[in-house]
Amino acid sequence: MSEPLTLGVAGLGTVGTGLIQLLAAHTPRLERTLGRSIVVTGVCARSRDKVRGAGFGSAQWFDDPIALATDPSNAVFVELIGGDDGPAKAAVEAALKAGKHVVTANKALLAKHGVMLARLAEESGVSLNFEAAVAGGIPIIKMLREALAANEVRRIYGILNGTCNFILTKMTDEKRAFSDALKEAQDRGYAEADPTFDIGGFDAAHKLSLLVSLAFGTTIAFDQIYVEGIDRITKADIEAATELGYCIKLLGVAVRTDEGIEARVTPVLIDEESALAEVSGVTNCVGIDGDFVGNLLLVGPGAGGQATASAVASDIVDIARGLVMPPFIRPTAALEPAKRAGLTAHQGNYYVRMSVHDRPGAMASIMRRMSDENVSLESIVQKRPGAVHPGQAGEPEPGAQAAPANVILITHDTTEDAMRKALKAIELDGNVAEPPQMIRIEDL
Amino acid sequence: MSEPLTLGVAGLGTVGTGLIQLLAAHTPRLERTLGRSIVVTGVCARSRDKVRGAGFGSAQWFDDPIALATDPSNAVFVELIGGDDGPAKAAVEAALKAGKHVVTANKALLAKHGVMLARLAEESGVSLNFEAAVAGGIPIIKMLREALAANEVRRIYGILNGTCNFILTKMTDEKRAFSDALKEAQDRGYAEADPTFDIGGFDAAHKLSLLVSLAFGTTIAFDQIYVEGIDRITKADIEAATELGYCIKLLGVAVRTDEGIEARVTPVLIDEESALAEVSGVTNCVGIDGDFVGNLLLVGPGAGGQATASAVASDIVDIARGLVMPPFIRPTAALEPAKRAGLTAHQGNYYVRMSVHDRPGAMASIMRRMSDENVSLESIVQKRPGAVHPGQAGEPEPGAQAAPANVILITHDTTEDAMRKALKAIELDGNVAEPPQMIRIEDL
Repeated sequence: MSEPLTLGVAGLGTVGTGLIQLLAAHTPRLERTLGRSIVVTGVCARSRDKVRGAGFGSAQWFDDPIALATDPSNAVFVELIGGDDGPAKAAVEAALKAGKHVVTANKALLAKHGVMLARLAEESGVSLNFEAAVAGGIPIIKMLREALAANEVRRIYGILNGTCNFILTKMTDEKRAFSDALKEAQDRGYAEADPTFDIGGFDAAHKLSLLVSLAFGTTIAFDQIYVEGIDRITKADIEAATELGYCIKLLGVAVRTDEGIEARVTPVLIDEESALAEVSGVTNCVGIDGDFVGNLLLVGPGAGGQATASAVASDIVDIARGLVMPPFIRPTAALEPAKRAGLTAHQGNYYVRMSVHDRPGAMASIMRRMSDENVSLESIVQKRPGAVHPGQAGEPEPGAQAAPANVILITHDTTEDAMRKALKAIELDGNVAEPPQMIRIEDL
Repeated sequence: MSEPLTLGVAGLGTVGTGLIQLLAAHTPRLERTLGRSIVVTGVCARSRDKVRGAGFGSAQWFDDPIALATDPSNAVFVELIGGDDGPAKAAVEAALKAGKHVVTANKALLAKHGVMLARLAEESGVSLNFEAAVAGGIPIIKMLREALAANEVRRIYGILNGTCNFILTKMTDEKRAFSDALKEAQDRGYAEADPTFDIGGFDAAHKLSLLVSLAFGTTIAFDQIYVEGIDRITKADIEAATELGYCIKLLGVAVRTDEGIEARVTPVLIDEESALAEVSGVTNCVGIDGDFVGNLLLVGPGAGGQATASAVASDIVDIARGLVMPPFIRPTAALEPAKRAGLTAHQGNYYVRMSVHDRPGAMASIMRRMSDENVSLESIVQKRPGAVHPGQAGEPEPGAQAAPANVILITHDTTEDAMRKALKAIELDGNVAEPPQMIRIEDL
């Protein structure tokens, strides 16, 4: 048996305690597989109370994560503190400079400082592993770094935020309003009191920025990702999408185009028959289109202490096996500058929901604005909101002001630029009661 | 740049030529990622004609795979010949004994001789990699060996044969008979002229035997896998399953039980809302239930020259990176003897289709046989085949011999033993026109 691999674990929340449980539960298995044991020799957390009686064996307590990160008693520093700056960053930097392998689940830190940290890891010849930073228990980092190393990735996409997927699933399955579904997510602990980071799409964008770098060999550029949240999705959109055979998901998508990498996190409509439509609740998934492998899809738990601990443990196992490779596949010097394609060049089909005033020529004018931009339509569904009318459906009483009609359009293939121009013109014409709702359709 | 990794490739069918194409297409990418190039220095195939003008560069031709396997000009022997004995086995053995890494896509060879070959690899300190042997482009071997090394697998299951999945998809989507769907599979080149190996479930069982060893740490025991093919699935089963909200798939399943590993390849009913139900045509998928990670699902191309070449290439990339590990995760000496649980202890729900004679007391007798074995029913659907009756549906003309009624039962949770006993008794009672059709329901 080789000498044990020693760990210093900073942060004892659900993932940290999940990791300690996993290592305790699988000691014989890991020893048999690796020919060496994995031992936690030091821990550090916000409050020492957490540690008492929690079965950390003979691990030494540290008040300061940087002291733990540089202490010679451990060879691997496991950062589960969180936050894109402050103690997490300082400790990871200190550990890498001290020649220690680092395992982290911190997507915010990597999205902001990933290339700098990867350079430090290179200089010290150590690993910087972050399987748990994207899509929880799904081993997507290993997939991109290793299994698909001989493919050119054309597109990578995924349901990367469980909170949003939970909310959209509730809205779809139980016909609930956004605010109502969000409240349940908060009650269950899936969403924070201030949910902006999740529902605004920023958490998914952090993860996508790491996937983009791995998939396309570029530097990390979180701020070049186009982000839209799910808070603007209404019951009316969910219902219309369902009726038309679609399902609404918050998707992170990055595509290689002639003008660079188009990267975006937005709500999209997907075919309800696609495998992603079945990915419900807090489950995550990632799909990859590679030039040789074709389409691969991975589905699994996007969060949770145990699933995330499994990902952290797989990073540790790689280190125990002596596997060291550049964090972002190629050496940092070989990463290409992130050249993002603007979204205006995006091509695809679109869903549009409009509240159209019931007046002669309104629809004709809308159709003309569309055709002016060469946008042709695949389907048009017009509905009069029943509850508004005192008279019979579709038959306003004489003299009554007719309520706006709900019009749903699905376009043929067109460009973002054309759509934005057409919808702006429609809005300015004054034929709609509110700005049109536009959602991209993603072809999977 | 380190020195190139040299390959000898034996077998130039779709996978072999796909690999040559991949290496040619991705030379700069691989060099940048690995810091070394990958060069095919020798090839061998059934006919030399295949090689002419196919862009094999300066690779040397070998008439004999064993000569290629032992030639000092290459460090890795890539076996794409196929067959569980003969030249494939001889060449792989020779290569391993000569201290060469081996990459193979040959599931039949590994299912029969995997442990012996793994021992040879261990003795020489080389890799025996076989990502392409199971589920084509899906990186399930890497997943089990590495990403899930810190999990105890509770169950592994998958759609492992594209031919069967294609046939079942055609039968479901287009309401076609088995023989008709099989013919289309043959016309498209998805099924051999003698399709027994695929539709009998044996190909899937080969793959499952490898997954079982990797997932549960046991020796390989192909002959202990219970196998049923899809040729007994009728249009009536597909229709009944659809009506009840299920979908029929040929699934390989292995579960850890108190009595050992239960491993089987059989047609099963799965919930039509499950993600696996959306896996159609020649696509494969593998699901894993791990104690920490929870449920992971991987979906991708199960065959095809390019996708399989991608898997072969990932094995080569691992070797180029210096990653060597025991082929079946732990050293062969530590593999536990394969102790399979008999299927009679299987627990679950069942689907039963019976052709019941229209006579007084027949259904009562059937129900009694079920309750004698403590089998309780979740649903009963009885249908009279419309075409048989000259009179009105359900109303036989006076004096006419009533046709048997089609009866579909779904049981509550019970055991295989109870089901077999009950159905045997029902058959012997003579109330059914043919032996009852029994299909397990898999809870995913």
